[in-house]
Amino acid sequence: MNIVPGGGTLGILGSGQLGRMLAIAAARLGIDAHIYAPDPDSPAARVASRFTCAAYDDRTALEQFAKSVDAVTTEFENVPAETCTILKEYVPVRPDDNALEIAQDRVAEKIFLNKQGIGTAPWRAVDDTGMLDRAINALGTPAILKTRRFGYDGKGQVRITTPHDAADAIRQMNGAPAILEGFVPFEREISVIAARGIDGTRACYDPGENSHKDGILRTTKVPADINTQTRNEALAVAEKIIDALDYTGVMGVEMFVEPDGTLLVNEIAPRVHNTGHWTLEGCAISQFEQHVRAVCGWPLGDTHRHSNAVMTNLIGDEADDWQALTKQSQAVHLYGKGASRPGRKMGHLTRLSPKTQ
Amino acid sequence: MNIVPGGGTLGILGSGQLGRMLAIAAARLGIDAHIYAPDPDSPAARVASRFTCAAYDDRTALEQFAKSVDAVTTEFENVPAETCTILKEYVPVRPDDNALEIAQDRVAEKIFLNKQGIGTAPWRAVDDTGMLDRAINALGTPAILKTRRFGYDGKGQVRITTPHDAADAIRQMNGAPAILEGFVPFEREISVIAARGIDGTRACYDPGENSHKDGILRTTKVPADINTQTRNEALAVAEKIIDALDYTGVMGVEMFVEPDGTLLVNEIAPRVHNTGHWTLEGCAISQFEQHVRAVCGWPLGDTHRHSNAVMTNLIGDEADDWQALTKQSQAVHLYGKGASRPGRKMGHLTRLSPKTQ
Repeated sequence: MNIVPGGGTLGILGSGQLGRMLAIAAARLGIDAHIYAPDPDSPAARVASRFTCAAYDDRTALEQFAKSVDAVTTEFENVPAETCTILKEYVPVRPDDNALEIAQDRVAEKIFLNKQGIGTAPWRAVDDTGMLDRAINALGTPAILKTRRFGYDGKGQVRITTPHDAADAIRQMNGAPAILEGFVPFEREISVIAARGIDGTRACYDPGENSHKDGILRTTKVPADINTQTRNEALAVAEKIIDALDYTGVMGVEMFVEPDGTLLVNEIAPRVHNTGHWTLEGCAISQFEQHVRAVCGWPLGDTHRHSNAVMTNLIGDEADDWQALTKQSQAVHLYGKGASRPGRKMGHLTRLSPKTQ
Repeated sequence: MNIVPGGGTLGILGSGQLGRMLAIAAARLGIDAHIYAPDPDSPAARVASRFTCAAYDDRTALEQFAKSVDAVTTEFENVPAETCTILKEYVPVRPDDNALEIAQDRVAEKIFLNKQGIGTAPWRAVDDTGMLDRAINALGTPAILKTRRFGYDGKGQVRITTPHDAADAIRQMNGAPAILEGFVPFEREISVIAARGIDGTRACYDPGENSHKDGILRTTKVPADINTQTRNEALAVAEKIIDALDYTGVMGVEMFVEPDGTLLVNEIAPRVHNTGHWTLEGCAISQFEQHVRAVCGWPLGDTHRHSNAVMTNLIGDEADDWQALTKQSQAVHLYGKGASRPGRKMGHLTRLSPKTQ
C-alpha cells in the first residue's frame, strides 16, 4: 500500500499557497515536505525541508525528486501527464493522474459527471464558429464560453448575452478548444470538500456556501443556507465522484443549487480547495491535513465542524493592511508572496462564531 | 517599536518542537522563520526558511543571524545572558532577558513572585548541608530539593520524605546551588497561558488543568475544574506577572490550587508552554501564533476557546504507533524527532468536545 511513515517525506508539486499549507499540515504530522516547482520564488518552499526548483519536464530532476520522497501529491490539477508518468515509475502519485486528466479538461469532466448520472449545466464542445453557432442554438443565451483547459479564477471565460456576441467570444478563445455552458438559474453555489483514503474510506466536510466577485472566490461560509436534504444530497454527489474515480486525497466539488434544490456540479478540483480554507479553524483536522493523511495512506481525520465560519479571501492589495486585519478578532493567513498584484490571492481571513446547526 | 512586517523574518533560538510550532505559526502569518541552534538535527529547521547551526556563544554566527532577522525570540528560557547581549546590539530580543534571567533561577523567580505579593510554596535557598538542615527545620517534611537552574520535566529534583533523606539529597545536587520547597497540599495544578503585546495589551487563555506522570506533563484539560472566582484570580495573577516584567510574548504560569481555592505559583516559563498546546485546536489563534504576534509587534489575537479540549503528551515510544493514534478522532501532532527515547516528548494528541462552560 506504500504508506508514508511518520518521519517520512511527502513530495509536493507546486509552490503556491496550497502547497505551503499542505507542507505545514505535513509538518504537524511529523512528515517532511519536499517541494518541486519551476518558480524559484516559492511560498511553499519556505516552510518545507527541501525544495527542487526545476521544470515539470526535467526528467533528471523529476527522477531525483521521486527517489527522495515516499509519495508525491500536487497542489494543482494541470500537472503535465508526462510528469506523472515519470514520477510513477518510482513512487506513488496521489491522486492518480486519471483524476487530474479529467479535471484538466472541462469537456472530459462533464462527460465523466454525466456518465455517473450527475447533473451539470447543459453544455456543448466548441472548436470553431460553426460549432458555437449550433451550441448557442441548442442551449440559448445567456451562456458562457470557456476554454476547455487551464482556466482558473474566471480567466478564459466569456459571457455570451445574445447570439451577436458569438464572433467576438470565439476570437477571445484564441483558437483554444472551448466549451459552451448553458445558463443555470441557480440560487447559490456550494462546495463539498470530500476526502477518500487509500482504503476507500470517505469523509466529507459540511458544505460551504460561496460568493464570488469578478470571477474570484470572495467568501465561503459554513453552514451553507441549505436544508438537510440538500446537504445530504451534496455529500452523496461528492462521494459518488470520488468513488467513481477510485480517488485518493481531498477533492473540492463545486455545485449550483437550483431554486427547487436540484444540484448541478459546476467543477471538480482534484486537490485542496480555496472553499475549504475555513477548515483550518473550523475543524480539528483541516482539509490540508486530511489530504496529507489520505495521500500518505494514513487514516482519515474527523471532519466534524465545531463552529460556524466565514472565510474571506484577501485579494491584491487587501493583504497589505495586515496590521488592521489582525486587530479584528479573526484568524489571518498571509501566504508569504512578494508583491501584491490585482486579482492575486495574497491571504485569507477566517472568523469563527458559535455553531448554530 | 520595531515591528516585524508581513514578509519579514523572525529569528528563533532553539530547534525543538516549540521552535517548530512557532515556525509553523509564523508561516501562517507570512513571516519567515530563521532557526538558530547548536544541534544539527533540528525539528524546527525542517519547517523554517533558514537554519543557522552554531553554538550559543559563537559571536560571529550570532551577529550574522541577528542581521538576517527583524526580531529574535526563543523556545527555551536557558538562553545564556551573553547570547542575548550580543543579539540585542542588532535587533529586538523578545521576551527581554530580564524575564529569562528570572525564570532561569528558581530562587530569583520566587523572590520576584513574592515581591509582587504572589504566593508560592514556602522555600529556602540551599547551598550546602548546613543550609539544608536549617531549611528542613523551617519547612518540615515532606519537601522537595531542586537545583536552582536547568531543571525540567522533573529532572534535578529529589523528594525529601524525612530529615534522614537530607544527606543523600544534597549529594544528588552534585554541588549545584539548590532550593528547598515546602510541601503544598494542593488539590490540582492549573496553567494560565498569558500573552502581552509590545503596547502592553494582555490576553489570557482559559486555565488548563494539568496531570503529571513521573514528573512529566501527561495531560492538560480545559476547562479546569475550578470555579469562576478561582479562574478569574488565576488570570489576574498571570497578568500581574507579565505586567511586572514589562513582558512581551507568551508566558506559561503554573499554579497550585489549594483546597480553599488559594493559588500558589509553582513556576513561570517565559515562552510557549506544553500546557498550552490545546490552543492549536481549541482556539482560532493558538499560543504559538499569539507569541509570534506579540514578539513581532502585531496586535494580539482572540483567546476565545470554542471547545473543550484534552491534550495528551506522547512520551517515548508512545508516538511510534501513529497509525492507531490517527484513527481515534483526534488531532495528532508528531514533532519529527528521530528515535524515541524514554521520557522524550515525541508528539501530542488533542481531543475536542463541545464547550460546556
